[in-house]
Amino acid sequence: MTSPPPGGLIQGNDDEGGTVARLRFNISMSLDGFIAGPHQSEQEPLGEGGMQLHEWVFGLEAWRESHGREGGEVNPSTAVVDGWTENVGAAVMGRNMFGGRGPRGDDPWNGWWGDDPPFHMPVFIVTHHARAPVTMQGGTSFHFVTDGIGSALDQAKEAAGGKDVNLGGGAQVAQQYLRAGLIDEVQISLVPVLLGAGARLFDDLGSMPIGLEPTRTVAAPGVTHLAYRVVK
Amino acid sequence: MTSPPPGGLIQGNDDEGGTVARLRFNISMSLDGFIAGPHQSEQEPLGEGGMQLHEWVFGLEAWRESHGREGGEVNPSTAVVDGWTENVGAAVMGRNMFGGRGPRGDDPWNGWWGDDPPFHMPVFIVTHHARAPVTMQGGTSFHFVTDGIGSALDQAKEAAGGKDVNLGGGAQVAQQYLRAGLIDEVQISLVPVLLGAGARLFDDLGSMPIGLEPTRTVAAPGVTHLAYRVVK
Repeated sequence: MTSPPPGGLIQGNDDEGGTVARLRFNISMSLDGFIAGPHQSEQEPLGEGGMQLHEWVFGLEAWRESHGREGGEVNPSTAVVDGWTENVGAAVMGRNMFGGRGPRGDDPWNGWWGDDPPFHMPVFIVTHHARAPVTMQGGTSFHFVTDGIGSALDQAKEAAGGKDVNLGGGAQVAQQYLRAGLIDEVQISLVPVLLGAGARLFDDLGSMPIGLEPTRTVAAPGVTHLAYRVVK
Repeated sequence: MTSPPPGGLIQGNDDEGGTVARLRFNISMSLDGFIAGPHQSEQEPLGEGGMQLHEWVFGLEAWRESHGREGGEVNPSTAVVDGWTENVGAAVMGRNMFGGRGPRGDDPWNGWWGDDPPFHMPVFIVTHHARAPVTMQGGTSFHFVTDGIGSALDQAKEAAGGKDVNLGGGAQVAQQYLRAGLIDEVQISLVPVLLGAGARLFDDLGSMPIGLEPTRTVAAPGVTHLAYRVVK
């Protein structure tokens, strides 16, 4: 197992030896490959059984802190969760992860994440539905991008000011970024459950081979964290 | 990470405190969940790209030794491969893993595995096609079982004389044993490749929940070994 450098598992270098902002993707996945259960809905955004994928994180002090709560456990997952936001300046995610599918018109709903979302950074949402940016509490702002994943990533990198960009889900937007070869690092938190159905992460990836080089393995209670560099 | 007791990751106990023979399943799986690539054939028994799942093992001294070859590497996979046959007295596998699909009539072909197969123990093959047992070199014998997976396991346990039984593939027979709740231990050697298509291990598992308890994680070159106890 290799130790990550400060600020992420891997740092890229540009031709002049400077560091390059990277797109990092962290996701919890069931052993049978699902990142959400079947029948996702507003009531069950992660689908049936999907919450099991995140049980390992809810008790952690590192997670509770970022969600404004006190107390909690410290275990080998702590460093992994702390690393998620180290040297990260912005995020991109799909409309589904922000707040479910479909147009909302003038519906003022600001997604699943409450008034003080846990991101604390600018978040660029890939969507078909234009909308003015929304500034939330705690440093999170939501920006709605209607001209594709490349544009969302460009805007996120600009906002990140040289830091890395985190990619959230859901599965479809992650697959779009994988197919386009835009992801630099994948970290899978593999959870020992079998969901049997739902949204598969590695599906519909097209015919371009995607090379992965393992960089770190961390065994922790209820989860195994597997980090890979995407070989380009 | 927990260390396995001698002779396997977990030892069961019967009501009198004695040990109970267990069914253990070791398999190499791609990160996207496939244990063989698409288009399996006699020429490519593991399907297109499927050999990539086993590259981590071919250079190991522990593997080469069991296949009658000398030399090779020692790395963290060594103890895992050595453990595969510790305290194991017999094996069960599907017809596909033995020698491809379909009836063969009087065809004397004895499968993919050569005159001195690497099992060195009695192997019980789940098939629809009755055939007399075949004794190979090196302690391997092939026994053809036409009355189902339960019978094959019973016969293997009888032949194992109190030791454990290994389950080979392919995917279909493994799924049958998983659905029937007959597997005690699953060890997945997770390989950082994306096959995109082929035979999925965790597919078609029915509606009975299958509980898995992680027992060991071993990071090694080109592979991460994940061991689980099946909770009953």
